[in-house]
Amino acid sequence: MRTAAILGCAGYAGQETLDRVLAHPELELLALGSDSLAGQPAFALDPRLDGSLPAFVANTAAAASGADVLFLCLENDEAAAFAPPAGTVVVDLSGSHRLADDELARAWYGTAPGAWSYGLPELFAPQGPLIANPGCYATAALLALAPLTGSISRAIVDAKSGVSGAGKSLKASSHAGFVLENLSAYAVGAHRHAPEIAQQLGFAVCFVPHLLPVRRGLLATCYVQTDADVRSLLEDTYAASAVVRVLPEGITPELTRVQSTDAAEIGVFADGATGTTIVICALDNLGKGAAGQAVQNANLALGLDETAGLRLSGVLV
Amino acid sequence: MRTAAILGCAGYAGQETLDRVLAHPELELLALGSDSLAGQPAFALDPRLDGSLPAFVANTAAAASGADVLFLCLENDEAAAFAPPAGTVVVDLSGSHRLADDELARAWYGTAPGAWSYGLPELFAPQGPLIANPGCYATAALLALAPLTGSISRAIVDAKSGVSGAGKSLKASSHAGFVLENLSAYAVGAHRHAPEIAQQLGFAVCFVPHLLPVRRGLLATCYVQTDADVRSLLEDTYAASAVVRVLPEGITPELTRVQSTDAAEIGVFADGATGTTIVICALDNLGKGAAGQAVQNANLALGLDETAGLRLSGVLV
Amino acid sequence: MRTAAILGCAGYAGQETLDRVLAHPELELLALGSDSLAGQPAFALDPRLDGSLPAFVANTAAAASGADVLFLCLENDEAAAFAPPAGTVVVDLSGSHRLADDELARAWYGTAPGAWSYGLPELFAPQGPLIANPGCYATAALLALAPLTGSISRAIVDAKSGVSGAGKSLKASSHAGFVLENLSAYAVGAHRHAPEIAQQLGFAVCFVPHLLPVRRGLLATCYVQTDADVRSLLEDTYAASAVVRVLPEGITPELTRVQSTDAAEIGVFADGATGTTIVICALDNLGKGAAGQAVQNANLALGLDETAGLRLSGVLV
Amino acid sequence: MRTAAILGCAGYAGQETLDRVLAHPELELLALGSDSLAGQPAFALDPRLDGSLPAFVANTAAAASGADVLFLCLENDEAAAFAPPAGTVVVDLSGSHRLADDELARAWYGTAPGAWSYGLPELFAPQGPLIANPGCYATAALLALAPLTGSISRAIVDAKSGVSGAGKSLKASSHAGFVLENLSAYAVGAHRHAPEIAQQLGFAVCFVPHLLPVRRGLLATCYVQTDADVRSLLEDTYAASAVVRVLPEGITPELTRVQSTDAAEIGVFADGATGTTIVICALDNLGKGAAGQAVQNANLALGLDETAGLRLSGVLV
Repeated sequence: MRTAAILGCAGYAGQETLDRVLAHPELELLALGSDSLAGQPAFALDPRLDGSLPAFVANTAAAASGADVLFLCLENDEAAAFAPPAGTVVVDLSGSHRLADDELARAWYGTAPGAWSYGLPELFAPQGPLIANPGCYATAALLALAPLTGSISRAIVDAKSGVSGAGKSLKASSHAGFVLENLSAYAVGAHRHAPEIAQQLGFAVCFVPHLLPVRRGLLATCYVQTDADVRSLLEDTYAASAVVRVLPEGITPELTRVQSTDAAEIGVFADGATGTTIVICALDNLGKGAAGQAVQNANLALGLDETAGLRLSGVLV
Repeated sequence: MRTAAILGCAGYAGQETLDRVLAHPELELLALGSDSLAGQPAFALDPRLDGSLPAFVANTAAAASGADVLFLCLENDEAAAFAPPAGTVVVDLSGSHRLADDELARAWYGTAPGAWSYGLPELFAPQGPLIANPGCYATAALLALAPLTGSISRAIVDAKSGVSGAGKSLKASSHAGFVLENLSAYAVGAHRHAPEIAQQLGFAVCFVPHLLPVRRGLLATCYVQTDADVRSLLEDTYAASAVVRVLPEGITPELTRVQSTDAAEIGVFADGATGTTIVICALDNLGKGAAGQAVQNANLALGLDETAGLRLSGVLV
Repeated sequence: MRTAAILGCAGYAGQETLDRVLAHPELELLALGSDSLAGQPAFALDPRLDGSLPAFVANTAAAASGADVLFLCLENDEAAAFAPPAGTVVVDLSGSHRLADDELARAWYGTAPGAWSYGLPELFAPQGPLIANPGCYATAALLALAPLTGSISRAIVDAKSGVSGAGKSLKASSHAGFVLENLSAYAVGAHRHAPEIAQQLGFAVCFVPHLLPVRRGLLATCYVQTDADVRSLLEDTYAASAVVRVLPEGITPELTRVQSTDAAEIGVFADGATGTTIVICALDNLGKGAAGQAVQNANLALGLDETAGLRLSGVLV
Repeated sequence: MRTAAILGCAGYAGQETLDRVLAHPELELLALGSDSLAGQPAFALDPRLDGSLPAFVANTAAAASGADVLFLCLENDEAAAFAPPAGTVVVDLSGSHRLADDELARAWYGTAPGAWSYGLPELFAPQGPLIANPGCYATAALLALAPLTGSISRAIVDAKSGVSGAGKSLKASSHAGFVLENLSAYAVGAHRHAPEIAQQLGFAVCFVPHLLPVRRGLLATCYVQTDADVRSLLEDTYAASAVVRVLPEGITPELTRVQSTDAAEIGVFADGATGTTIVICALDNLGKGAAGQAVQNANLALGLDETAGLRLSGVLV
C-alpha cells in the first residue's frame, strides 16, 4: 500500500479525488487537507463519509503528512505557491503548472513554469514526480485531435461543459438562475485552455467554450480538414485503452454514458458537403477531466496499475 | 381586421402560432384545425384557452374556412399534400416547401417544390402568397451568415437546440430520461436544414446540431475566416430591425434573453490566435424559429405592420 | 398617466417589476433605482433595454423622484429602514412589513411592523398607500387555503419552488452545481413564510418548502381534512378573477402554464382512502408571487384597472 | 458463483439490474433476455457493454437458461403471466405480485396474487424464492414510516420522483418538452403504490406523487402526528444497515447524494407550530427503488452477502 494526501479537499476536484482514493486498492488515505474545514471530521464535507476517516487538517499539515502522493486540488495561485516536498509524487489539478512557456505561463496564470511535466497518460505520459494534470477542455480536445497532429495544422473546437467545471466558488455565472434553461458561450477567443491545447498540439486551435445546464459532463465537437483516415488514427491510438472508447460508426458520444466515470468516448463523422471531419469527444469534467486523470497520473508515477481506483465500469441509465 | 386559420394546432408550432394570433391586433381567429382534436373545445388543448374561441375542426374544414391567411403547422407529408386555396396567403411552417431544387426537395422531403417562396423577412422577403417558413436552425445560421455572403465561401455551424425543436411527437430522443443532464450531437453531416442553409447562402456549410436539455431556445455558433468587418456588415443589416439585435462587443447571446420571444440576438467575436471570426446567434426555436417568423411573414403578405402580434417586448429574468 | 419608480431594480424582483411597468398602459417609468448600478444606463442591467429609458440612480434618488408609486425591491433590512414619502403609494416586495405582530416581526425580520397593510388582492385588499406584498410561498398557500378558513383549522403545505425564489445573491444553495438534478427540503419547520400564512389564516400550518431544479415557478400541495365542498368554495372565491384559475376536475396545475405570467392555477382533488382533500396551487414566484402581485396592488391603490400591466394572456408551450 | 438471468433487459430497470449483476462478485450473468433485442449483441443496448457478454435472447429463453436467479424486469402484464421455474429464485421488479389481497391485486393490476412474498430487506424480509420487489415510492414511504407503525395510524406522503421512474416507454408525460422546467402532481389519490404502502403499514396513507425535472432520484416528504421519539425509532431500525442512513439533526436528504446508488437517506424534523413530525426519505428510484433492492433480495434468497453487488460507496459531487 502507498499513501495519499489531498490538499483542498472541500472543492469539487478534491471531493472527486477523495472518491477515487477511497476506492483505490493500493492507496491509503493519510491526510485530508482543507484550510476551511481544518479541525472538522470528514463527514463535515459529506454525510456519506464515515467517522473512521482522518479529520481535516490544514493544507500545510496535509502536505507534511509524509504521504507518497499529494493531490493538489487548490486554487491556481495556491498551487503556484506550493513547494513540493522532495521525492514526493505531486499531481497538481490546478492550471498553474500546465503551460511550459514562461511568457504564456505568466500571462495566463501569473506564475513561472517549474519542473512539472504534463500528464495525459494516453498521449503524453508524465515525466517525473511533479505532474501537471490537464484541464478538462484540453483533455477532451487533445484526445480528439492529438492523434491527428501529423495530418492537420488547424482545428475548431466547439466545447460545452456542465457547471461543475467552473468550480464550487460562488459567482454569477454559476448561479442556477443563470444556468438553468440557458446556454451561452463565454471567454470566446480568450480561454486559458486554448494555449494549453496549442502547446500540446503544436498549433493553435479556435476554441469556444459554452456553459451547459447540466451538473457534470463535457462535450467537445472538433472540426478538421484532412485526407487522413481519422477513424483509423484514433482507433489505433486508443486500441489498448481501458479509458478511451472510440465508438462504432454512427454512434454519437453522449454525456450520460460518461458522467460520474473516468472514461471518455470519441465519435468520428464525415460531412460530405464540405469535406470536413468531425471528431466528438465526451468525458466527465470531474472524472477524466480532473480527478480520474489525476489518479491515473499518480498510478503511473507510483508504478501502480494505471487504472486502479478509476471509475470505469457500470452501465447506468 | 383580417382572418386567420391554423391547421395542425395541437403541435408545438400550432400552439405557438395560436398564441401570436390571439395577441394580434389585426388578425381574427376564424378556425382552429386539428384532426386529432376535431370536435373538442379550444381548452381541450390548453386550460388557459377560454370558451369563446371556436372549437376545433378537421384541418380540411379549417382550410376551407375562407380565412385570409392559413398557417400550416402540419407534418411534412401533410403539408406537401396540401392544396392551397387560390388567393389565400398560406404560411407553411413545415419543411416541405423550403427547398427549391427539385432533386434536393425530393431527396430530403420526398416532394417536388412548388410555387412557394422562402420567407425570412430580414434577409429574404417572401414573394407572393405561398410562403415557406424557414427551419429554426436555418434561421439562426442565416441571420448570422447571410450578411457575410460576399466575404465568405465556407462556414462551420455548430448548433444547439432545446427539445421542443423536435416536436411534440413521441420518440426515444425526446424522452426526458434521454434528454435531461445529457448533450449529444445528432444527424451529423446529414440534417435537412443543411441544404436549406446552403440554398440561401449559395455555398455549403458544415452543420452539426446538438440536443440541449432545455425546453426551448437555440444557439448557433458559426465560424468563418474573412478579412471583412463582420460586425459592421451585421450591424448594417439589422440596424432597422425590431426583431434582430446585434449585441455590443463583449456581450454574448443567451437563450434566456430570447426564450418565449420572437427576437434574435447576435454576438460577434474574434479569435486572435487563428484569425477566426465567431458569430453567435440565439433565438427561440418556436419563436423566431417558427411561429413568430410565420406571423411576421403573414404580416408582410397581408400588408400589415411587420411585427404586429409578435412577442418582442419584455425583460423577463 | 401615473408615474412609477423602482428601488433595487438589479435583483430578480426589480427586473420583473420593471418588465410589468414597461408594459403598463397607465404607468410611466420615472426612475430606476439601484445602488450597485447607479450612473449606468438601463441596458447595463439587460441588453434588451433600450437607450430611451432613464439611467440608474441611487435608491435614495429614486425614492425622491416624486413618482406616484414606489416599488421597493430591496433586501429586508433596507426595506425596513426605508422612510416612505408622505402621500406616495409604496409597495414593499420584501418581507419586512408583512408580519403585523410586533413580536413575530422582530423575531423573523428584526424590525417593528408599521402602518403597512397586507395586499393579496383576491383575498386581502390592501388598505392605504403602504402595502406589504406577500411572500411567494404565502401567496400560493393562501390562494389555496384562505377560502376554506371557516371549514378547516389545520393544514399541511408541501411547497416546491424554482431557484429564482431565493434571489440573485450568491449562496451555496443557489449554485447550479447544487441545484441541478437535485431536490431537497430546507428550513423545515423554520421558514418565515409560515408565520405569514398563519397570520392571514388565523391558524398555524405545517409548511415545508423544497428547492426545485427549475428557474421559476412554485407549486404548493396543500392537505386538509374537511367535509366542506372545497371546490365550490374555491370556485366561488375566484369566479370573477382574471388572475386565479380553478381548473376543471382532473386537471392538475403545472408550472409551465404559469411561468413568466402573473396568473395562478388551482386544482382540487379527493383522496378517498383517507378522506383528505388536496388543493394544489401553481404560480410563478416572480409573477403572482412577486412583481405581478406588486403591480396588481399598486393598481388598486392608484385606482387603476386591477390587472393593467400584468402578464395574463398567452398560451406558450 | 451463482448464475443470473435478466428478463426485459432493455428497459431502465433491466439495464440497472445488469449494471449490478456485472459488478457482483458472486453472480455470473448467464442470459440477457429481451424480446425486442433478441439476437443482437449486448452492446446493442449500450456501447459500454463489451463483446464478451452473452447476446440477447428472447425472454422465454432467458427464463429457461437454468440460472439460479431470474430478475423479471418486464411490464406488469408480462410479469403476471410469467410461470416461474420450480426451485428458482425469481425477483419480480414489476408491480404484479406486490398486492397480496385478491381484490386489490385484481383492481390495480388485473391479476391474482400468487405465492410471492414482499421483499424490502430492512423491514420485510423476503420469504421463499418468489419475491415481489417493492415499488420505488412504496420503498421510500415504508423506510420512513414502517418503523413508526406502533405510534401512528395515519400519514401524508408527498412524493417527488425523477422521470426514469415512469420507465423508458414513450408517453406524453415523459416527453422532455413536458418534463423540463415543469413540476406537476399526477394520479392524485389514485396511484397503485398507495394500496401497496397501506398493505405493509396496516393503514391507509394519503399519497400524492409529483414528477420532477430530473433523470433519477426520489424524495418522499412524510407528515405524521405522534408523541413517539421518531428519531430513535428510525435510528434503532437502521442502526446496522449499510443501505439506509439516518442523517444527523439538521441535515436534509438530497437527491444528489443517493443518485446512481442503492442507498437511502432519512432526515427527521419537527414542526413546532403544529406538532407535526416530518420524515423525509431520499433514494434513487432505479437503485434502492428498483435494481439495487432486487439484487439485495436476490442475495438474501441465495444466501449471499446482503449487499454484494450493490452501489453503496462513493462520494460523488
